[in-house]
Amino acid sequence: MTEDTLSAWRRAQAVCFSFDNTVTENDTLDLLAQHLGLGPEAAQVAEQAANGQLSTQDSLQRRLQLLNCSPQDILGFLDQHPPATRLAPGVEDLVAALQARGIVVYLASASSWELTAPIAQALNIPYAHVFADGMAWQETEAADGPRLVGFTRHEAASYASPQAEAVGKLRDMFPYQTLAFVGSGTTDLEAAQLAHGADIFIAYAGVVQHEAVVQGSDWSVRDFHEMARMLKKHKVACIGSGAWACAAVRIVAYNTLHNDPRDEFAKEVTMWVHEEEVNGRKLSEIINETHENVKYLPGVKLGDNVVATPDLLEAVSGADIIMVCVPHQFVHGICKQLQGHVSQDAIAVSLTKGMRVRPEGPQLISEMVRNYLRIDCSVLMGANIAQDIASEQLSEATIGYTILANAEVLKRVFETHYFYVTMVPDVAAAEMCGTLKNIVALSAGFVDGLAYGPNTKAAIMREGLQEMRQFCKALYPTVRDETFFESCGVADLIATCYGGRNRKVAEAYVKALMTDHPKTFDELEAELLHGQKLQGVLTSNEVQEVLRKRGWQDDYPLFTTTNRIVNGRLPPHAITAYRDCGIDGFDYPERADNPTSSQDGARADPLAVAAREREAQSK
Amino acid sequence: MTEDTLSAWRRAQAVCFSFDNTVTENDTLDLLAQHLGLGPEAAQVAEQAANGQLSTQDSLQRRLQLLNCSPQDILGFLDQHPPATRLAPGVEDLVAALQARGIVVYLASASSWELTAPIAQALNIPYAHVFADGMAWQETEAADGPRLVGFTRHEAASYASPQAEAVGKLRDMFPYQTLAFVGSGTTDLEAAQLAHGADIFIAYAGVVQHEAVVQGSDWSVRDFHEMARMLKKHKVACIGSGAWACAAVRIVAYNTLHNDPRDEFAKEVTMWVHEEEVNGRKLSEIINETHENVKYLPGVKLGDNVVATPDLLEAVSGADIIMVCVPHQFVHGICKQLQGHVSQDAIAVSLTKGMRVRPEGPQLISEMVRNYLRIDCSVLMGANIAQDIASEQLSEATIGYTILANAEVLKRVFETHYFYVTMVPDVAAAEMCGTLKNIVALSAGFVDGLAYGPNTKAAIMREGLQEMRQFCKALYPTVRDETFFESCGVADLIATCYGGRNRKVAEAYVKALMTDHPKTFDELEAELLHGQKLQGVLTSNEVQEVLRKRGWQDDYPLFTTTNRIVNGRLPPHAITAYRDCGIDGFDYPERADNPTSSQDGARADPLAVAAREREAQSK
Repeated sequence: MTEDTLSAWRRAQAVCFSFDNTVTENDTLDLLAQHLGLGPEAAQVAEQAANGQLSTQDSLQRRLQLLNCSPQDILGFLDQHPPATRLAPGVEDLVAALQARGIVVYLASASSWELTAPIAQALNIPYAHVFADGMAWQETEAADGPRLVGFTRHEAASYASPQAEAVGKLRDMFPYQTLAFVGSGTTDLEAAQLAHGADIFIAYAGVVQHEAVVQGSDWSVRDFHEMARMLKKHKVACIGSGAWACAAVRIVAYNTLHNDPRDEFAKEVTMWVHEEEVNGRKLSEIINETHENVKYLPGVKLGDNVVATPDLLEAVSGADIIMVCVPHQFVHGICKQLQGHVSQDAIAVSLTKGMRVRPEGPQLISEMVRNYLRIDCSVLMGANIAQDIASEQLSEATIGYTILANAEVLKRVFETHYFYVTMVPDVAAAEMCGTLKNIVALSAGFVDGLAYGPNTKAAIMREGLQEMRQFCKALYPTVRDETFFESCGVADLIATCYGGRNRKVAEAYVKALMTDHPKTFDELEAELLHGQKLQGVLTSNEVQEVLRKRGWQDDYPLFTTTNRIVNGRLPPHAITAYRDCGIDGFDYPERADNPTSSQDGARADPLAVAAREREAQSK
Repeated sequence: MTEDTLSAWRRAQAVCFSFDNTVTENDTLDLLAQHLGLGPEAAQVAEQAANGQLSTQDSLQRRLQLLNCSPQDILGFLDQHPPATRLAPGVEDLVAALQARGIVVYLASASSWELTAPIAQALNIPYAHVFADGMAWQETEAADGPRLVGFTRHEAASYASPQAEAVGKLRDMFPYQTLAFVGSGTTDLEAAQLAHGADIFIAYAGVVQHEAVVQGSDWSVRDFHEMARMLKKHKVACIGSGAWACAAVRIVAYNTLHNDPRDEFAKEVTMWVHEEEVNGRKLSEIINETHENVKYLPGVKLGDNVVATPDLLEAVSGADIIMVCVPHQFVHGICKQLQGHVSQDAIAVSLTKGMRVRPEGPQLISEMVRNYLRIDCSVLMGANIAQDIASEQLSEATIGYTILANAEVLKRVFETHYFYVTMVPDVAAAEMCGTLKNIVALSAGFVDGLAYGPNTKAAIMREGLQEMRQFCKALYPTVRDETFFESCGVADLIATCYGGRNRKVAEAYVKALMTDHPKTFDELEAELLHGQKLQGVLTSNEVQEVLRKRGWQDDYPLFTTTNRIVNGRLPPHAITAYRDCGIDGFDYPERADNPTSSQDGARADPLAVAAREREAQSK
């Protein structure tokens, strides 16, 4: 096999399999004839075709006529020869591996629809992707009903073979750049060699081996597993090595090694580490030696197949699934460094919470990645407390996607028996939820610090969820309510408001205020988070900037009240009075001017004109 | 005033007020003429009308023409005579009291739209409810613009007076059973006396008193507060005296006494107590003496205006707002006792969680109340941990309603500064949430008992919320997603899964299982709940009955798994494997049979026929 053939195989968008002696380990009509005790007669007809005395099509028609059987005979045959006894070894795995990569699989059969369909079903090939002619039946006086008289479409003038028809139709119907054909007989080779036929022809010699067919092929294989092994493997790289990045990488490393039934993932997972010294040694070296991030997720083995590197470009080299999981303030710089160094076949998935505030409005992390790297970017968001996931407690996440096929690959990268993954076609809401919930976690932390009960906390969280939803919809009109019922919405909010670090620091802030030694958020971050970043305060200030710029502060009373508490402008107990704090009676320099709303129903025009004039003069 | 008049006043669905000398304490056109220094001239025209030399309408037109002023003059007048200086005493309170009862208020003015509108706005009367003609203006060469030349519609042939027009239009447009007209002048009396005019005419003699008008009236008053006092007062009765009933009654008792700006509530609130002995005394007597339910909400004063009675019919006697707040298994019996003894003007509100399972399907408590008592029934649901509400911590609730006007009254009954109430037009979902969340609280309690972290608990709660939503929508197609974002949905779920009694008992159940002395739910209920009922187990069994009857068990894996744990058929740690427990590999007698799904794409007809025949024969 040449490099060109390998490359074409890896690029293939569709693969069409021949049926007899390729997908099956026998010729189905021969098998049926033997089943009916007509083996020798059928063999004679086949020989006439081999000698050139009969066309392939005529020989097929004759063989079917010769059988002259009833429908019950066919059912009996299918019962005695279920798909499992007819499939060639490894074909199931190969078809699954192709489909896993989004490659469309077709089946072209000369042995009638009725005999082919059970095999297609066993291989998960949709009936619409099967090319085969039906059996023609003739009514008789016999007790067991009609008799088989051949194929329904034998008369059609333009008809060469089902295989040739399949290739022709696929070329007509779809703009596949690369179409591969897999077969074992001369008819198969001819079909592939048609004008505008298949781009590569692969001879399968695992059942029968025709020297001419092997000679005419681009690649000859005796084992379907070889073809599967030559398919492209997805290689995953993770940008980031904080607690959540490590917990996620641990799942990915497990899945690529032990949970890869389609054999679609490269075993090695690379992880970019922002280098730092830990106990006098480089963190990346410690990880590679101990397979543990002793600083950010101590006590948890990441997997032997995780390779840490402090070199960003080395980390993404050869990767085609790129996880972004660094604090959001670093994403911009990282994207700029990666620009032009990422494969254009790659896809990205952001696990980062946060947004970038620019004068013209906020920008999602996924938007930034998409814009800089020019590749599709999904997001994985959800209730993700790193330590609990690392200890394999049941957790969930949501993939927000634009392209479903990419989300499906990502689901297989991330889902495991203790980590359930759902998918929603709503990147914006999934990502915004992951960001905004950190503000509500601060609000909830204040409630905890004040030792209020579950009613109050639930009321604050509910208002928080409402404001999250309102904010998402105000910025992204495509946002769906449904998304907020997913893990990235309500579940992440609950987990974060009960277990997250923002809640913890906010609670500590309130408790410290009640002592003689109040502490700032910066001090508490350093004291409690061991080098992790407190996202909530940053996010609160960024979101407030958006609200201020658009004059929306009064419409988000909980966000606004929380921001004022965070910045020391209101005491923590103001949180339960959020309905007032966001609106009136609190005089703050940053408060947006309310433009006087125009009175409705102003009927008297001259009066309205005079009123406007007077107003203009008084300015 | 006769009894008939009082009865009509209390029944009135709409009240139309005349403007000058009724709503205002002066004649507005006279006041405007004085403002422009034309008082005597205007008075002369008015006198001609009084002498019968001019029709009322012509006199109005003349008076406006006489003023011949500019738009700026009108603005100047309005500036110097703001609504507060023109309103008759008590009219604001009366209008608010009427509107509070859902009675529609109209305004019929002879003094031009421009002079009337500011008063309408001050009284919260929508502009659409104001009948008045606009000012007509004529362009001039003058620097200060056009000149006033009269009313826009003076020419209209059918035109008697704005008051008469208002009454005529209201009669044409709305089927009000009882329409009241309030005025002070002869034009007002004439308007009310039109054919099909007002049902009662009330003379307001607080500003001017025309003997003929008073004589012609059904009722003459000098103080609007008298009219307000004669309006019906809502009397609240509560059926039930458990912890939540007591916490709710405490709010209602406070609101009727101290938070009733519209003076619409009777001060006394009655509470039906299921009589029992506490320390050798009757509970109802203890409550009436100490104003405290020492058994179910000890240490909390309910309010001096709460009257407890063990007599059900006495409790609802004279009440027109009936709160139902008893364990759901008792509602049916209570409804049967109340049948025929409740005022048909009354409205009900259910605070009870649970449903009644009947062979034909579940029945909501609100449906049961509606069917037996033949009155509208809303529900009040939300995050309601009784003790926290009693200690005035911020809490929320949602009113699910069918009739908005009733919900608005109920909102005023229940809302107070620490108890926020929202309204949704979705009784079914609001009520079902209040019931179903108790099942999820059991699931969450199992998670707590097993000491799993917040991720797991959030994942379980989210699945619970999804199944709640799915179940509501399956039974009631009108259910709205929006409802689940309200307090009755997500907030109640959170509060109950962190603070409720079902969670507490489920946690204790798991912990007891781990010792040498496992306990049943009944034992734990008795031990931990001090006589309160554990709703969750009952609800779980009832809901499972519905799921089983309809063959839906596999579609609700968390509900089903929780029910199996509750009944000792699965160990508690099965909760995190709910995806499997609800579906496969668990052999339970009650499992619904899955009907074999029919294969798609059966193309070969004779074969399909043979297959069906064979299947039929084998049976």
